[in-house]
Amino acid sequence: MTQRRVAVIGLGLIGASLGGALRARGYLVSGLDHDPATMQTALDRGLVDVVSDDLRVVLKEADLVILAMPVLSIIDTLPQIDELSRPGAVIMDVGSVKGPVVDAMERLPGAGRMIGGHPIAGKEQSGPGVADVSLFQRRSFALVPSGATSIPTLHTAESVVRAVGGVPVVLAAVEHDRMVAMTSHLPQLLATALALSVEPRDESLAGPGLRDMTRLAASGASMWTDILVSNADNIAAALGGCVAQLQNLSTMASAGDTVALEGAMTLANERAATIAGSVPS
Amino acid sequence: MTQRRVAVIGLGLIGASLGGALRARGYLVSGLDHDPATMQTALDRGLVDVVSDDLRVVLKEADLVILAMPVLSIIDTLPQIDELSRPGAVIMDVGSVKGPVVDAMERLPGAGRMIGGHPIAGKEQSGPGVADVSLFQRRSFALVPSGATSIPTLHTAESVVRAVGGVPVVLAAVEHDRMVAMTSHLPQLLATALALSVEPRDESLAGPGLRDMTRLAASGASMWTDILVSNADNIAAALGGCVAQLQNLSTMASAGDTVALEGAMTLANERAATIAGSVPS
Repeated sequence: MTQRRVAVIGLGLIGASLGGALRARGYLVSGLDHDPATMQTALDRGLVDVVSDDLRVVLKEADLVILAMPVLSIIDTLPQIDELSRPGAVIMDVGSVKGPVVDAMERLPGAGRMIGGHPIAGKEQSGPGVADVSLFQRRSFALVPSGATSIPTLHTAESVVRAVGGVPVVLAAVEHDRMVAMTSHLPQLLATALALSVEPRDESLAGPGLRDMTRLAASGASMWTDILVSNADNIAAALGGCVAQLQNLSTMASAGDTVALEGAMTLANERAATIAGSVPS
Repeated sequence: MTQRRVAVIGLGLIGASLGGALRARGYLVSGLDHDPATMQTALDRGLVDVVSDDLRVVLKEADLVILAMPVLSIIDTLPQIDELSRPGAVIMDVGSVKGPVVDAMERLPGAGRMIGGHPIAGKEQSGPGVADVSLFQRRSFALVPSGATSIPTLHTAESVVRAVGGVPVVLAAVEHDRMVAMTSHLPQLLATALALSVEPRDESLAGPGLRDMTRLAASGASMWTDILVSNADNIAAALGGCVAQLQNLSTMASAGDTVALEGAMTLANERAATIAGSVPS
């Protein structure tokens, strides 16, 4: 059996971590990034076997191509990847929004060999310097076929997810994007808005709660800009629900309604425990 | 020199941690809690020297009294503490809202020996089982005199804060309550509202970001109910500013304004780093 070859396009936190995890499982990994220093770090840390800034070279022998750039770059690059990758290679992206990506996939000649992916894992730091080959262990990894994705392509993607230790969750793009608006994009928006709201003069009374609730706001600005724009409708809906909860809690407080407020806080205690229990540590 | 004696009323996380930290610095610590099991845990863990459910017994010889109950209980109990504690004893509370507490202090016969306090430290878990004598190390500890607090009382409070490793920050109640609405109460409200917004069916795509952003929602419901009611106006103002930021980010996303959005996310990166740098780990 010949060694499987994977090309990883984009060597940020997710791309470099996937490269390293697949390399550890015996894949030969070639990588490309627009930033030479990023490629060098990925190479130095042993997360890829070879790097090149020439897309043709990186794709040449790959039978699996992973697109790990910001969402809008993935969409822009898909036609070129379809054209340059070898026939039969499976193409999977790992962007955080899936609707616009699988829509773009479905319209391409190679639609059958393309599938959307999204590992529910990350860090607020970015880049291959903080990449971690165990980042996907026991984490959900969404797999989102387009209407044209072939069954063999889905099976290949599932085996790749399992190879990096993840748990495949196959679902439709519309469901995925609605769910992550709530579970990932809204938390990011809350952290960002909170960081923007706190004035420097108030920081002498900053404590660990504020620090923890603004930690996500350190996440990469360009990656998140693409995500927020690509999933704006779902995020607006999730935000509307959360703002209604916020206003409701504030109204109960202003009215001095301790009974209603304690009821809501107690329910939130239970919900937080359930959420914590659903995320493997 | 005789051993200094401190009475701690309320042996939750903060009260028991303060008791243990002062005991480690040579104070003789007596404690009271309405819950016998809580008193036993504090005693078993060596956080207090003695416990009693009789307020007279606990206060009898104390030259420092620390009130560590929920805010509304502190306000209700202050007259009785003033009446029963020995002449000359300093009385400090450690509630998270200071305006209503120091207003109540100022109206009492013993106003000169009373001062508001608020350690900027905590955990989402509560009770003496998770108390930690190093909880206040390098943390800001607000000291809030009423209009009638004497200078010797302030100096005693400062020495107590330093004894537990904290950094005294003396400020007026109106400033304190405005600041913590932003740095503590708003983050709590965001975590609670987020926990209430996420539906169980969405949890298969829950990741570490969501878990971290809802962790504070596990905090004690009754303690937080008192805080939110006691500081409702400041919290409503802080929430208004944050919701405006949220709506602004969402509007930029819906408009596809990647330039404005990346600018805001980049500013949030900087603000998050400054906040993290202002909180000693």
